[in-house]
Amino acid sequence: MLDKPDQKPHDRLAEALSGDMAEVNALIRTRMASEHAPRIPEVTAHLVEAGGKRLRPMLTLAAARMCGYEGDNHVKLAATVEFIHTATLLHDDVVDESEKRRGRPTANLLWDNKSSVLVGDYLFARSFQLMTETNNIRVLRILSDAAATIAEGEVLQMTAAQDLRTTEAIYLQVVRGKTAALFSAATEVGGVIAEMDEAQVKALFDYGDALGIAFQIVDDLLDYWGSDATGKNVGDDFRERKLTLPVIKAVALGDDEERAFWKRTIEKGRQEDGDLEHAIALLNKHGTLEATRAEANEWIAKARAALAHLPAHPIRDMLDDLADYVVARVN
Amino acid sequence: MLDKPDQKPHDRLAEALSGDMAEVNALIRTRMASEHAPRIPEVTAHLVEAGGKRLRPMLTLAAARMCGYEGDNHVKLAATVEFIHTATLLHDDVVDESEKRRGRPTANLLWDNKSSVLVGDYLFARSFQLMTETNNIRVLRILSDAAATIAEGEVLQMTAAQDLRTTEAIYLQVVRGKTAALFSAATEVGGVIAEMDEAQVKALFDYGDALGIAFQIVDDLLDYWGSDATGKNVGDDFRERKLTLPVIKAVALGDDEERAFWKRTIEKGRQEDGDLEHAIALLNKHGTLEATRAEANEWIAKARAALAHLPAHPIRDMLDDLADYVVARVN
Repeated sequence: MLDKPDQKPHDRLAEALSGDMAEVNALIRTRMASEHAPRIPEVTAHLVEAGGKRLRPMLTLAAARMCGYEGDNHVKLAATVEFIHTATLLHDDVVDESEKRRGRPTANLLWDNKSSVLVGDYLFARSFQLMTETNNIRVLRILSDAAATIAEGEVLQMTAAQDLRTTEAIYLQVVRGKTAALFSAATEVGGVIAEMDEAQVKALFDYGDALGIAFQIVDDLLDYWGSDATGKNVGDDFRERKLTLPVIKAVALGDDEERAFWKRTIEKGRQEDGDLEHAIALLNKHGTLEATRAEANEWIAKARAALAHLPAHPIRDMLDDLADYVVARVN
Repeated sequence: MLDKPDQKPHDRLAEALSGDMAEVNALIRTRMASEHAPRIPEVTAHLVEAGGKRLRPMLTLAAARMCGYEGDNHVKLAATVEFIHTATLLHDDVVDESEKRRGRPTANLLWDNKSSVLVGDYLFARSFQLMTETNNIRVLRILSDAAATIAEGEVLQMTAAQDLRTTEAIYLQVVRGKTAALFSAATEVGGVIAEMDEAQVKALFDYGDALGIAFQIVDDLLDYWGSDATGKNVGDDFRERKLTLPVIKAVALGDDEERAFWKRTIEKGRQEDGDLEHAIALLNKHGTLEATRAEANEWIAKARAALAHLPAHPIRDMLDDLADYVVARVN
C-alpha cells in the first residue's frame, strides 16, 4: 500500500475505498432528489458537487471495512453522515452569513436563506430515513446523539463567540460539537455494524473524536499561521471576532493593556488597520500558536493510540497516516 | 363523556388525556434543556410555554389510548411530535420573516434568525433521540418519512407561492407537507405501538391525514372568510401573496381581466387600496369560498369514515367530535 509514497493519505484511502465510495455517491444523488420540489436537488447538488473531500463518509467506510464488514449498511451510513454534514453546512452559511464555501458562492447567496434553511431540514430528514433503513437501533442512537451534539455546539459557539470569558473547556465543547461529534459517530457506527466488541467500538469512537478535535484546532491555528499555500485566508476568524484556541490562551496570559486590546477588537468589534498584525504579535509573544500546535499534536497522539486497539489492516495504516497528515500542515 | 355539552371537543380530549399530557409536558421540559447552551431552553420555552393547543401530541395519546395501549412509549412519541412541530415553527418564522406567533413576538425577533435556525436543529435532533428510545424501527420510519414530507412541502410552498400556475394538486401536496404529514404520523404511530392490525393502522393514518388537510383548508379559508372572532386577520395571505385554495380556484375560473388582476397582486405583488375587497368579490363571484368549504367538509367526512374502522371507545367519539369542530368555524 506504500507503493505511491507521494500520494496523500486521504487520496490513498479514497483509492482503497473507491468502489464503496462510488456507491455512496450514487446513493447521495438518488436520495437528494425530490419528486415534488426541484429546488431541493438544485441546492443540494450545488454543494455536494462542489466536491468536498468526503472525509466523513470515508471514515465510516474505512472503519467498517477495516473491521471486516461485508454487508451494505456502511454505504447507507456513509451517505447519512454526508447528508448530516451537508445540512449543517447549509445552516452554518445562513448563521454566519457566509458568501463562499468550497470556492463557490454559498447557496444562501445564490438562492436565499429560506432555501438553505428548508433544504437543510430536508437533508436532515433524509439522513434519518437512510439510517432507519439499517434497522439498527444502536446506530440510530449514535447518530441522533451526534446530531444533537452538533446543534448544541453551534448554539454554544454562537453565544460564546465574542465573549472573552470563554474558557478552553468551552472551546473544546464547541469543537466537539461542530467537528468531532460527526467524526466520532462516523467511525463508531462502522464498528457497530461490523459487530466489533465494545473495546474496539470505543477505540473507533476515540479515534474519530481525537482526529476531529485535532482537525478543528489545526483549522483554527491556520487562521493565524497559514499562508496562501494552505488555502486559508489569514485573519478571517479575527475579523469575524471568533474566539479560537490561540486567542483564548493569549487572553488568559495577557496584561491589562492586552486585555483591553482583545476587548476592543473581539468583544466590541472595533478593529483598525494593524490590529491583525498586533494580534499575531501577541500570540507569538505568549507562544500560544506553539502551544496550540502542541495541543493538536497531543490529540493526534491519542487518535493513533486508539488505532492500536483495532485489528491490523492496510486501512488501519492509512488511518494512522491520515492522523499524521491532519497536523502535517502545521508541523 | 357527554356530561359537559358546552365544552369544546379539544378540551374534552385534553381532560380525558390530562394524566398523559402532564407526563408529555414534563418530558418536553426535561428534554429541551441543554447542559451547555442555555440559549436553547430560553428559545424553546418562549415558544413551548406560549401555550399552543398541543393538538398533535394529543392525537398520538388519543390514538394509543383508544387502541388500548398500556406502555409509556406514547408519551415519548407525543413529545417527539411536539418537538418536530416546534422545530418547524422556529424555522417557518425565519423563512416567513414573521414577527408574531401565538400572540407573542417570534423567537427570530426576540433573539435572532441564527438562534431560531440552530435551536430548531437541536429540537429536530432531540426528537430523533426521543423516538429512538422506543426501540421501534417502524415508528422511526414513519416519523422520519413525515419529517422529509414536511420539509419537502415547505420547499414546494416557497417555490409555488406567487406562481399562478400552481394547481389544486400542488396545493394539496403543500398542505400534506405543512400540516397533514405530522397529523397522520401522530395518529399512525399511536396505533403502531398499540400493535393494531394493518387495517386499523391505515385507518388511523387516514384520520390524521384527512383531519390535517381539512384543518389547513379551513385555516386558508378563514383568511378570506373570517372575522375578528375567529382570531384570524383577514387578508394576511393575500398581502403575503400566498396562493391558497380559494384563489387557485378563482384563477382557474377567471377571465383575462381577472387573471391580470391576480397576476398584478399575487405574482407581481403590486397591491393597491381596495385590492383585497376586489379579491374577495372575485372569490364570491365564482363561489370559490363555498367550494373550498365544501372540500373541507369532504375531508372531514373522510376522517370520520376512517374512525369507523377503529374500536368503539369514548376517545373515538371525541375524535369524531374534533373532526366536526375543525370545520365548525366555517359551517
